[in-house]
Amino acid sequence: MKLVTFDGGPDHGLVGRLDGDTVVELEVPSTRAYFEREGQVGETGRRFALADVRLRAPIVPKKFFHTAGNFREHHEDLVRVDWSHPVNKGIVFFQNVDAVIGPDEPIVYPANLTRELDYELELAIVIGRPGRFFSAEQAVEHIAGYVVFNDITARDIQRREMESGVFSFSKAIETFCPIGPYIVTADEIDDPHTLDMELRVNGDVRQKSHTGRMSVSIPQLVAYHSPQTYSAGDLVTTGTVAGVAASTEDPFANYLKPGDVVEAEIEGLGVLRNPVVSWREAYGEDEPPAEQWV
Amino acid sequence: MKLVTFDGGPDHGLVGRLDGDTVVELEVPSTRAYFEREGQVGETGRRFALADVRLRAPIVPKKFFHTAGNFREHHEDLVRVDWSHPVNKGIVFFQNVDAVIGPDEPIVYPANLTRELDYELELAIVIGRPGRFFSAEQAVEHIAGYVVFNDITARDIQRREMESGVFSFSKAIETFCPIGPYIVTADEIDDPHTLDMELRVNGDVRQKSHTGRMSVSIPQLVAYHSPQTYSAGDLVTTGTVAGVAASTEDPFANYLKPGDVVEAEIEGLGVLRNPVVSWREAYGEDEPPAEQWV
Repeated sequence: MKLVTFDGGPDHGLVGRLDGDTVVELEVPSTRAYFEREGQVGETGRRFALADVRLRAPIVPKKFFHTAGNFREHHEDLVRVDWSHPVNKGIVFFQNVDAVIGPDEPIVYPANLTRELDYELELAIVIGRPGRFFSAEQAVEHIAGYVVFNDITARDIQRREMESGVFSFSKAIETFCPIGPYIVTADEIDDPHTLDMELRVNGDVRQKSHTGRMSVSIPQLVAYHSPQTYSAGDLVTTGTVAGVAASTEDPFANYLKPGDVVEAEIEGLGVLRNPVVSWREAYGEDEPPAEQWV
Repeated sequence: MKLVTFDGGPDHGLVGRLDGDTVVELEVPSTRAYFEREGQVGETGRRFALADVRLRAPIVPKKFFHTAGNFREHHEDLVRVDWSHPVNKGIVFFQNVDAVIGPDEPIVYPANLTRELDYELELAIVIGRPGRFFSAEQAVEHIAGYVVFNDITARDIQRREMESGVFSFSKAIETFCPIGPYIVTADEIDDPHTLDMELRVNGDVRQKSHTGRMSVSIPQLVAYHSPQTYSAGDLVTTGTVAGVAASTEDPFANYLKPGDVVEAEIEGLGVLRNPVVSWREAYGEDEPPAEQWV
């Protein structure tokens, strides 16, 4: 099933499933509630043409686990450009659930905070059944779906943060967490380690990889982080692949800028498309000055 | 006003205000909803003796901003013991909202994951009015209250995480986020930079400081992080002070162990008391083995 949130907002939109070009409305207030009810929800009887609705972020989770280091090619990329730290397996931090946006929603460029806006294509896992301290064998019972995630990152802020051995701000600014266009439930994906991945900026391929290149399995990953406990609807990302702008020969030629359109695609999970816009274009006013004290 | 959540659970308990030894029930489903409604809530008419109710975590926020580096004495402490990274101003990461526990609830010692369990006394700010990209002058309108936080940390896990320049797991294991015993609304605190701070383990003073030793002001701190956007009821911590076990001459003599009782106290905000218990004592069974692949 392809689950969508539409119209309203991500926290107060309607919920549906895609049936070709039709959205079949489900009788549940949010996709989070859908997973809390283990998918035991009915239909309202209303149907909409997909072209007539506005898709929103398919879920706003209670927790958004951001893991990294699972694709060794991303580590190797960053070693090549003398990145300050190795990207080891087992990395995790929490993403800002208030920075989540959906398909076609703009990534707002905060020019007073960064000049190095980067993209990162990632596969995210949707947790169904809550749990904690479970094994890889048990993990499969907790995996309910998959969704595309584009981890927007201000590299200049990230480098400054990492001097202290921790970061978050660089990936947590409002609009920096596009997910979508829909959640594909786990029963539709035979093996999540067999999917092509590709990210394009203005049609140019920037990242191209395959979920099979992960150095750990998805059940291992979900089990490893389970001492932090899972609620229904939590997201767990799996880390990005080679090709982020910061790892290229000319990063400043590849960083995102207003006017760009980013398309993040994973086989079977759809295309997550987001334009990058200036503050003025987004809000009709000048960006406020950044609070300076660091 | 001293706001409490009682009986039920932190997400489904009752809400009240303390009136001496009496809990006056408020007509609102959660303290988060209290802040969403800007405190415009009535009373139910029910009153309970404080001794007859069980206090729970006073709030489970949508986002739990964990900042650090604001008390330079913590940085100086860690430099002295050759900590791997400086603790710069401006540090932020998100705490696990599913790890929140309340007063007198046990911190469960996960012996298969850590042998270096530490404490960290912190003042946390409660956000009232939502907002983003605002200045220090505007920040005061967004600060609605204060609460004591004890940032429980597995130092061995944290050291391993910091090799990659980021950490979270070490502070995100279930039960590692005690807050309470209540939220004191901002109108009751003339100046949050004038409060004595003290943390005790089994009655012995381990941390002793003062909120006036922060190197930035609370409004500056709240403004600085505002590009990450605030929802009503979000928590923003202000970093710990000197004296964590890892910074002492004999850390292993000072790390927490089952049987200990930690009391975190800030002047005017009460005492947050939590026992440390073994997995078996908490759950009546052996702790499951940790998933090993890092």
